[in-house]
Amino acid sequence: MAMELAGNGHGFVHPNPYVGAVIVKNGKIIGSGWHTCYGKLHAEREAFANLTESAEGATMYVTLEPCCHYGKTPPCTEAIIENRVSKVVVGLLDPNPKVGGKGIEILKAAGIEVEYGLLQDELKEQNRIFLKYITTGMPWVAMKSAMTLDGKIATHTGDSKWVSGEESRNYSQCMRNEFAAIMVGIGTVQADNPMLNCRLCGDIHQPIRIIADSGAHIALDSAIVQSAKEYRTIVAHTSKGEVSKLKQLRDMGVETLLCEECNGHIDVTDMLRKLGAMKIDSVILEGGGTLNNSFVAAKAIDEVYAFVAPKIVGGSDAKTPVEGDGVDMMADALELHCVHVERCGDDVLIRGRVR
Amino acid sequence: MAMELAGNGHGFVHPNPYVGAVIVKNGKIIGSGWHTCYGKLHAEREAFANLTESAEGATMYVTLEPCCHYGKTPPCTEAIIENRVSKVVVGLLDPNPKVGGKGIEILKAAGIEVEYGLLQDELKEQNRIFLKYITTGMPWVAMKSAMTLDGKIATHTGDSKWVSGEESRNYSQCMRNEFAAIMVGIGTVQADNPMLNCRLCGDIHQPIRIIADSGAHIALDSAIVQSAKEYRTIVAHTSKGEVSKLKQLRDMGVETLLCEECNGHIDVTDMLRKLGAMKIDSVILEGGGTLNNSFVAAKAIDEVYAFVAPKIVGGSDAKTPVEGDGVDMMADALELHCVHVERCGDDVLIRGRVR
Repeated sequence: MAMELAGNGHGFVHPNPYVGAVIVKNGKIIGSGWHTCYGKLHAEREAFANLTESAEGATMYVTLEPCCHYGKTPPCTEAIIENRVSKVVVGLLDPNPKVGGKGIEILKAAGIEVEYGLLQDELKEQNRIFLKYITTGMPWVAMKSAMTLDGKIATHTGDSKWVSGEESRNYSQCMRNEFAAIMVGIGTVQADNPMLNCRLCGDIHQPIRIIADSGAHIALDSAIVQSAKEYRTIVAHTSKGEVSKLKQLRDMGVETLLCEECNGHIDVTDMLRKLGAMKIDSVILEGGGTLNNSFVAAKAIDEVYAFVAPKIVGGSDAKTPVEGDGVDMMADALELHCVHVERCGDDVLIRGRVR
Repeated sequence: MAMELAGNGHGFVHPNPYVGAVIVKNGKIIGSGWHTCYGKLHAEREAFANLTESAEGATMYVTLEPCCHYGKTPPCTEAIIENRVSKVVVGLLDPNPKVGGKGIEILKAAGIEVEYGLLQDELKEQNRIFLKYITTGMPWVAMKSAMTLDGKIATHTGDSKWVSGEESRNYSQCMRNEFAAIMVGIGTVQADNPMLNCRLCGDIHQPIRIIADSGAHIALDSAIVQSAKEYRTIVAHTSKGEVSKLKQLRDMGVETLLCEECNGHIDVTDMLRKLGAMKIDSVILEGGGTLNNSFVAAKAIDEVYAFVAPKIVGGSDAKTPVEGDGVDMMADALELHCVHVERCGDDVLIRGRVR
């Protein structure tokens, strides 16, 4: 239940982890909560805030080790001790070097019984973004593509409306609500003039829009630049970007991010490191094929969401999800693990992890 | 049960249908059988041959309307009447114009109760090859491809060993055991020098190997030509094929099939019509992309078997399952129906019907 509650934070907690907490006394749930939003209360304090009776002698179930340091909020270990909880059941240990088992030590020193290590695999999966980000400082990258059953992301004329069906496109919108940012290459902006915003209704998170555009060639009248004051937008470029164009972009609300160059393109690793430093913990990579190939070559992809639509368009010149040179030998292909297959309307979604 | 028995004929009955029969008397199965092989007994006669007691007053369940004409075997209606069966439950009506409901009329005229129309969808699916072939005279075409999660059938260097895993390749071998023939283009022969035989063990059917090779350029020392006396082989060509080369091929055991030309390639419809006239009721189309595109353009594909391997190779020059020009607009894509998804080892098999 704590894990399920943790999931409610989707889209709002990054770069924090998803955390849920449930307090049980005499076989009854007397409080529960989750970390709802970056900067707001941690799950443990949310649960205490919702108590229906005193937590004295109760057991707290919490999906991540309680923090013991002063951050945006005071340490949760203090709240647990103050509320005289007698037992804490912890899921994951906090991989944050500032905490790393110390939270549990503090609780034990206060005479509280502690159990930990429950649901490791499920919780690691739920917090895969946080776990990568906190240990490497680089965002989790999910490459998302939609192709036909013959491997095309558009026809040879460039028409791509629509490869995938409504359910798949809705799924993509949900991803935009969950990930911190979305990235495309300048080619995609020039071809499709997309908005890249999240069009779900209600209380949603808008992903930061990142354009990989080494020469800062993005048109000032593109939908992205025109809406940069409404939706946070970053143009990542190299030293090839002209100073005057960069200033124009900034004047229109675009943030510009200077990155190292690598083979004439943006150095992917450098860009991700800089985005990580900007507290961006997760990126949906939506291509096109050239940018995707740079990420594959830089070993910068963490997972893949491939929508396959049961239709055939043909075309030796039609674009595919990953272009560039590619690998020479099939044996050197980037292999996915933990492959999961599901239907998404008429389409098939194949998800897999690179690491 | 009759339908399940019918399936035992896989690989051996074409161009006949799959048929199974079960005879029941006093709630007990007293006989059953299936059409085992082209030219051998029909299912009804197989069932009678296996009777454990007299079929007088029994009910016969048979997946296809009993025949009433003299073909390779005497009419089954006669055998049913002779055995004094009192009721016959029929699945599909025979679409063969020589029969078309007449079998049922004859049984009724002999005072036998007849019920028909059970399991229509399932039986039509089981006999989709026969139903197309008997009504159009053209073989059922199943396009089979294996691509990576980024739509490639090989790397940019042409390396394709292996796109799909062992289970998928084994599935393909089972298809070769079931379909009358397998077809590739000359490009695939030149690139891969394949054998295209079925390498399953035991009592198996070898598919007729068909090479679409308008200029009859296939090398005399290719594995296909070298084994043409062992495995039946057809080289389909146009008037571009040189007479002397065609004679050399025939001397080595290859059958040559002259087809009309269409835009410099073999006219797919003409070729299929001629293959149908040769009693070939089903073809696995294994590409490459140019041949596949000719079939797509000719609207000659009946179903698609697409294996998707969860790996990424990249490459704008890497080949995809369907090449050529392709369609201009995504809305004009060839759409699949009745899409079925299954795991095949690490791979995903997406199957669908065009009609």
